[in-house]
Amino acid sequence: MKDGFMYEELKEAVCGANIELQKQKLVIYSWGNVSGIDRKAAVVAVKPSGVAYDKLTPDKIVLLDFDGNVLEKNLKLSSDTPTHLELYRNFKDIGGVCHTHSPSATMWAQACREIPCLGTTHADYFYGPIPVTDMMTEEEIKNDYELNTGKVIVKRFANIDPMQIPAVLVANHGPFTWGSGPAGAVEAAVVLEQIAATALGTILINPNMNPIGKKLLDKHYLRKHGKDAYYGQKSK
Amino acid sequence: MKDGFMYEELKEAVCGANIELQKQKLVIYSWGNVSGIDRKAAVVAVKPSGVAYDKLTPDKIVLLDFDGNVLEKNLKLSSDTPTHLELYRNFKDIGGVCHTHSPSATMWAQACREIPCLGTTHADYFYGPIPVTDMMTEEEIKNDYELNTGKVIVKRFANIDPMQIPAVLVANHGPFTWGSGPAGAVEAAVVLEQIAATALGTILINPNMNPIGKKLLDKHYLRKHGKDAYYGQKSK
Amino acid sequence: MKDGFMYEELKEAVCGANIELQKQKLVIYSWGNVSGIDRKAAVVAVKPSGVAYDKLTPDKIVLLDFDGNVLEKNLKLSSDTPTHLELYRNFKDIGGVCHTHSPSATMWAQACREIPCLGTTHADYFYGPIPVTDMMTEEEIKNDYELNTGKVIVKRFANIDPMQIPAVLVANHGPFTWGSGPAGAVEAAVVLEQIAATALGTILINPNMNPIGKKLLDKHYLRKHGKDAYYGQKSK
Amino acid sequence: MKDGFMYEELKEAVCGANIELQKQKLVIYSWGNVSGIDRKAAVVAVKPSGVAYDKLTPDKIVLLDFDGNVLEKNLKLSSDTPTHLELYRNFKDIGGVCHTHSPSATMWAQACREIPCLGTTHADYFYGPIPVTDMMTEEEIKNDYELNTGKVIVKRFANIDPMQIPAVLVANHGPFTWGSGPAGAVEAAVVLEQIAATALGTILINPNMNPIGKKLLDKHYLRKHGKDAYYGQKSK
Repeated sequence: MKDGFMYEELKEAVCGANIELQKQKLVIYSWGNVSGIDRKAAVVAVKPSGVAYDKLTPDKIVLLDFDGNVLEKNLKLSSDTPTHLELYRNFKDIGGVCHTHSPSATMWAQACREIPCLGTTHADYFYGPIPVTDMMTEEEIKNDYELNTGKVIVKRFANIDPMQIPAVLVANHGPFTWGSGPAGAVEAAVVLEQIAATALGTILINPNMNPIGKKLLDKHYLRKHGKDAYYGQKSK
Repeated sequence: MKDGFMYEELKEAVCGANIELQKQKLVIYSWGNVSGIDRKAAVVAVKPSGVAYDKLTPDKIVLLDFDGNVLEKNLKLSSDTPTHLELYRNFKDIGGVCHTHSPSATMWAQACREIPCLGTTHADYFYGPIPVTDMMTEEEIKNDYELNTGKVIVKRFANIDPMQIPAVLVANHGPFTWGSGPAGAVEAAVVLEQIAATALGTILINPNMNPIGKKLLDKHYLRKHGKDAYYGQKSK
Repeated sequence: MKDGFMYEELKEAVCGANIELQKQKLVIYSWGNVSGIDRKAAVVAVKPSGVAYDKLTPDKIVLLDFDGNVLEKNLKLSSDTPTHLELYRNFKDIGGVCHTHSPSATMWAQACREIPCLGTTHADYFYGPIPVTDMMTEEEIKNDYELNTGKVIVKRFANIDPMQIPAVLVANHGPFTWGSGPAGAVEAAVVLEQIAATALGTILINPNMNPIGKKLLDKHYLRKHGKDAYYGQKSK
Repeated sequence: MKDGFMYEELKEAVCGANIELQKQKLVIYSWGNVSGIDRKAAVVAVKPSGVAYDKLTPDKIVLLDFDGNVLEKNLKLSSDTPTHLELYRNFKDIGGVCHTHSPSATMWAQACREIPCLGTTHADYFYGPIPVTDMMTEEEIKNDYELNTGKVIVKRFANIDPMQIPAVLVANHGPFTWGSGPAGAVEAAVVLEQIAATALGTILINPNMNPIGKKLLDKHYLRKHGKDAYYGQKSK
């Protein structure tokens, strides 16, 4: 068994990102979880199940290997863990995963409708519409439900780069987001919530509004991402 | 007359649950009330009528028996008390009742439309749609209005297990919720308010959205409730 | 000239009620005003024009007689003062008037649509729909606009008891509310804002919803108002 | 190179106005920027790119001349700077410019629909509808995008006085506002956000609502602006 003390930093980052969920008003009670990964060590850190954010401390974060084996004796882990692990196994560049039931993103997920890219705020963060997964089949729900939640997400991203669209709406359920680390996954969740709310207002004002053009999408996404980015104090 | 000092814990729980209503922004002014019951002692504790939450202390909580007889000389009791008592008499497993006019749940109650189960957030707490009562008849309104409010709720639950759907919308009025104790009744009210708001957004985005399937409803409700629950640090 | 020191209590009540507008989030900047009246002394106290609520102190409140003559040398008075005075002259039992641009009430005022009584929350405070005035004519706007704003309100209440419906929507503009004193006028504004928001949600969920029946309206209004009231710690 | 110490006051005003964006909840993360100008000295002060409002101090504000040449060695400037400069060059009386992605104003911008003047709250600040720009062409997006954003705004104001309508919605994007200084530009952004939210509610309640008449628009705008203004403690 590996030494838990080696991963203090990972535990702190994951703990802090979970607490941020509450601060950003994305969650009530224990309705959300953030995980992080140390890819070199092949260690994943997840939230314990049903623990209030006020009571969360780094020592309560649970450490796992890629197959979900617990590395330290600890609290019971988040029931959504198999979804997180499936995303880490398939999206090779992500370092953090976040799941919430934030109201506006959940409205779109429940409506089983992708969020079209209706403006530059969306384009600044997401290089296209926020996809919605297929509804899960009875078979997928019956056994290994949380693992299969991960699989329907991965399937939906067959032709999408997850680093360019770091968010998905699970049909009938809610959003998952990710990023280069736990904090980035939470930032994606915050931004998703705001663009979801704004998109709803937009279609109420103009039900026939089309998504923005490809050139404007490119301009906004690429001025913030990739080798030609020119936003912020240094290129990311 | 029974000794009021025996029920300090019940009074404190009911007082705290009422104050929580304001903290959770479910109420303004004195628009809501929570009660609790000690079934062994057959004592019910209710909020005094029209008292501000800021001014509420355990000694102001009113103790009653099942028939509504006041057990301690105290403040005038909440005018909604007969509704609470009717629920305690008929829903044998509940330990707390909560009534608010929280905006989103009240929108559905005023629209006289049940809240369909449109997603897993709803299914995590409620094992089906949130029912709406019949509109009350002139006769039911004229005499014993508050008692009859309880009766129309009980009638609506003729074929529903109140522990599986711990909430109702009284037509033209607002929500009542309940739980194993006063705090649980308030938690149900908080969750109801959020799913009511999310459901409204969902039908604005997709007016023809169907409720989620039975298998997904079962999966989410049963992973949190009953003997096979696997959410949280211990089975409830 | 009368002694301003005689009206310290009135000034304090009006000052506090204005500050409450901001605390209750009904206003931004200086978008609202509350006045009060001492009917025995025939003195009205109004907010000075354009003063921030943070900077408002009782000594800045302006005292007037019924005809609008300033009784103390002081700051310039609220431009809405002639509206307030017209209401005091015609609604003999009111002791406070409040005007805001609170968002939800303003939505209905701008839509020139009365707020139907869609539920018991509304009926607990207002004995019928919240009326909307006629749109003002060019003539009424051109001269004595603020006085005429009062006149269109009074005209709208020709067959309504202002103590039973302590609120109005001025068409294209926003709400005025009143009460037995300045604090009551603000309470009416807070409640109006909440029922306006809830009514909007109700008609989005069910566009064809009818107002509640007369019996339910009577029950809720009369259990809180008038000689047979039984809500609260004493009859009002 | 000019002495940066000469512009302490300008830097402080611009810094404070940027921090106000966050306080007024118009922005999350670093999604907005405010600039100011000293026209006599021909010096513009802008926000550094991507800096959090919590970390912003006057010494981080970047000073430029009218052509965008940096006057002091400092942080990289806001990527929206060319838009601000184009507005200063063309709107001769403005002293501050503000850009946000505030949700309600962005809903209208994304819907590519001007905000009609539906009430007196709007008329108190803006002398007509809030215009929306043309959608930008591929050519305008491809090169000098931020400069061209300024140009489409200026083009839209060919027949509008920017001091009478201190706000615009850039199609598919969001609002820009301005004023006599940085603080005034932020105030216009706050008011725009509120009237955008209220206008959405208004058209949901009454989809066929017409804008208010010219006489009412004149009355409200002109009682607060221009030589005949009579609102506030002194004419502005």
